[in-house]
Amino acid sequence: MQGLASVLAGIPLAALLIGPDQRIAATNPAALDLLGQGIGGRHFLTALRQPDVLTAIESTLRDHAPRRTGYQASDSGRDSSFVVHVAYIDTPESHGVLVCFEDMTEREQAAQMRRDFVANVSHELRTPLTALMGFIETLQGPARRDDKAIDRFLGIMQTEAARMERLVRDLLSLSRVESEERVRPREPVDLSGTIGSVLYMLRPMARERGCEIAFDPVEGIEVPGNADQLQQVFTNLVENAIKYGGAGNHITITIETLDKDVTLRAPGVAVRVRDRGPGIDPLHIPRLTERFYRVDTHRSREMGGTGLGLAIVKHIVNRHRGRLRISSTPGEGSEFMVILPRWTASQG
Amino acid sequence: MQGLASVLAGIPLAALLIGPDQRIAATNPAALDLLGQGIGGRHFLTALRQPDVLTAIESTLRDHAPRRTGYQASDSGRDSSFVVHVAYIDTPESHGVLVCFEDMTEREQAAQMRRDFVANVSHELRTPLTALMGFIETLQGPARRDDKAIDRFLGIMQTEAARMERLVRDLLSLSRVESEERVRPREPVDLSGTIGSVLYMLRPMARERGCEIAFDPVEGIEVPGNADQLQQVFTNLVENAIKYGGAGNHITITIETLDKDVTLRAPGVAVRVRDRGPGIDPLHIPRLTERFYRVDTHRSREMGGTGLGLAIVKHIVNRHRGRLRISSTPGEGSEFMVILPRWTASQG
Ligand SMILES: Nc1ncnc2c1ncn2[C@@H]1O[C@H](COP(=O)(O)OP(=O)(O)OP(=O)(O)O)[C@@H](O)[C@H]1O
Ligand SMILES: Nc1ncnc2c1ncn2[C@@H]1O[C@H](COP(=O)(O)OP(=O)(O)OP(=O)(O)O)[C@@H](O)[C@H]1O
Ligand SMILES: [Mg+2]
Ligand SMILES: [Mg+2]
Repeated sequence: MQGLASVLAGIPLAALLIGPDQRIAATNPAALDLLGQGIGGRHFLTALRQPDVLTAIESTLRDHAPRRTGYQASDSGRDSSFVVHVAYIDTPESHGVLVCFEDMTEREQAAQMRRDFVANVSHELRTPLTALMGFIETLQGPARRDDKAIDRFLGIMQTEAARMERLVRDLLSLSRVESEERVRPREPVDLSGTIGSVLYMLRPMARERGCEIAFDPVEGIEVPGNADQLQQVFTNLVENAIKYGGAGNHITITIETLDKDVTLRAPGVAVRVRDRGPGIDPLHIPRLTERFYRVDTHRSREMGGTGLGLAIVKHIVNRHRGRLRISSTPGEGSEFMVILPRWTASQG
Repeated sequence: MQGLASVLAGIPLAALLIGPDQRIAATNPAALDLLGQGIGGRHFLTALRQPDVLTAIESTLRDHAPRRTGYQASDSGRDSSFVVHVAYIDTPESHGVLVCFEDMTEREQAAQMRRDFVANVSHELRTPLTALMGFIETLQGPARRDDKAIDRFLGIMQTEAARMERLVRDLLSLSRVESEERVRPREPVDLSGTIGSVLYMLRPMARERGCEIAFDPVEGIEVPGNADQLQQVFTNLVENAIKYGGAGNHITITIETLDKDVTLRAPGVAVRVRDRGPGIDPLHIPRLTERFYRVDTHRSREMGGTGLGLAIVKHIVNRHRGRLRISSTPGEGSEFMVILPRWTASQG
């Protein structure tokens, strides 16, 4: 590549050059992605269209002073926002206006996410707290000498406090996984053994709800991972299958090796946790791994859920360079598939 | 400005060009700020010094393929981190390597801040929660029929639950102020009236600790603001003066109009809340407005504090386009000064 086009290609932002004839004289690939593949050579008025940007360019073409303004893009439902930098340039090859688009979307979303997070945490805490405070007051007053009431209230208080404790624990766990997300865990973890111990722990819960769980362990499959975290992954998936699969539910867990998984580009292993419960409406599936997202908040709360389980699962799977796939046919059941890179001899 | 220098000036990142003689042929102001004012014309090896960056530039000079690497800067104790984009350019004026520095510091800090925030919130909640759960268990077991113990425990439980409720309320309040920070509040608020009602509310607390508060209201001073939020500001400042000023403390509150405050560049008003307590070590002063920061965590907790008060004050003052200044002489007392723009006739 030569000339100003080579300079634009070297700028790590969407950038374009408007020549003295007010036409788009050069672009870089990021600018074409943002504004459309066919904008080269067009008059800038027909290519950019947002009044603030047009005014800034016109003014800078006229007085050569640099300017800054905003640009909003929305592509297939996703909103992005940019700070647009407009500057006059004058080189032997050409002169005109250089327009650079600085992407602010991620930064703005981070701020919004933090606010949503605080609002969600506060909301989750407020309900049990209000209940606790109410019971404390009742015990101090009207129920003061009523032994039966005291016992019952203390039981509920314990449940509410345990729910809050679980929320705090899950929040910390999520935060820890996030902070380690770039550090790939490298201990060999035996997959069937891990799943086996999860099932052992969850047996009482499954029995209580009349769930049958079928699992055929496959010996000798190891993944590079963190044993505690992988245990958390399968605990949440199986717990969900028990909780949301309904009574008399059959749960199947299978392990399958993949010689060269397309998405991992390496030997992998797929674990499928399948239930025959009511399933999940496809509308909800893409959002299940968001923090606090629940299809039926009331039902999840009733079972002591915090809505953080699948968010933690997703981050742990990411940290293991794996994939989580969720599929469901309403009325027939759901399948949560975890694909992980397999331990290979060269890693030993 | 002309030539490639004008192009570099139009790029909203630190950027420089290395010519075929391996010397720095052009820079923009952001690059000089980052790398030093004297780098123009120097050999790139002496100006850039970080091995990864040097290797990337050498390779791109040789094979003309674009590259990406990292750069860490630390300036007066502040660490910044950059993604460095290296690309070969070839224009009629010159050829060589364009190096652009994309600043990632803010994004990385945002992620780190969120993790710290979660860790802090969890930590603050865990202590009272553990206490609550312990008392519930004790009431269910050993203290079951001991009326006196029950009364005492319920009292402590109420305090702990109230502390958690306050934390949740303060978190929400902080989050709300942050999300509105760009929307300037525009109602005229009577300053002396606001402070007067704050003092009325805090009178019992001051009396309990033997504090005297002197305040001379100044009539007719209004600021464009949000009355509830300004009330929160002065409540926290006076509450702090009472709590941390010690017994027998004298607190003075003064209002002073500023005809044209230098930092506000407009008519302003300064409110000073001064105490004659033990004061604050200068080391701590810059950090007092951080969330959860306390000089003496134990002492603050004892008084039911969450360490969010001054963080909320700072954000409210920012939203009002004002300034918060903290000064203190250990052993003599502290002064918290809030400067706000004054309501002017043209705003009516
Ligand atoms: N196997 C399943 N069948 C039907 N719905 C499911 C299934 N697994 C998860 N869900 C839905 O996804 C939501 C999110 O699951 P997630 O594990 O993140 O939270 P939770 O189970 O509600 O709470 P927690 O895991 O913190 O106890 C659940 O509330 C439920 O609505
Ligand atoms: N007037 C003062 N004199 C001495 N130290 C002070 C004074 N005001 C604040 N501080 C110190 O600054 C810290 C932060 O104050 P801040 O108002 O943010 O939190 P807090 O008072 O501890 O809790 P909260 O305001 O949430 O009840 C306090 O914990 C205290 O150590
Ligand atoms: Mg779950
Ligand atoms: Mg305070």
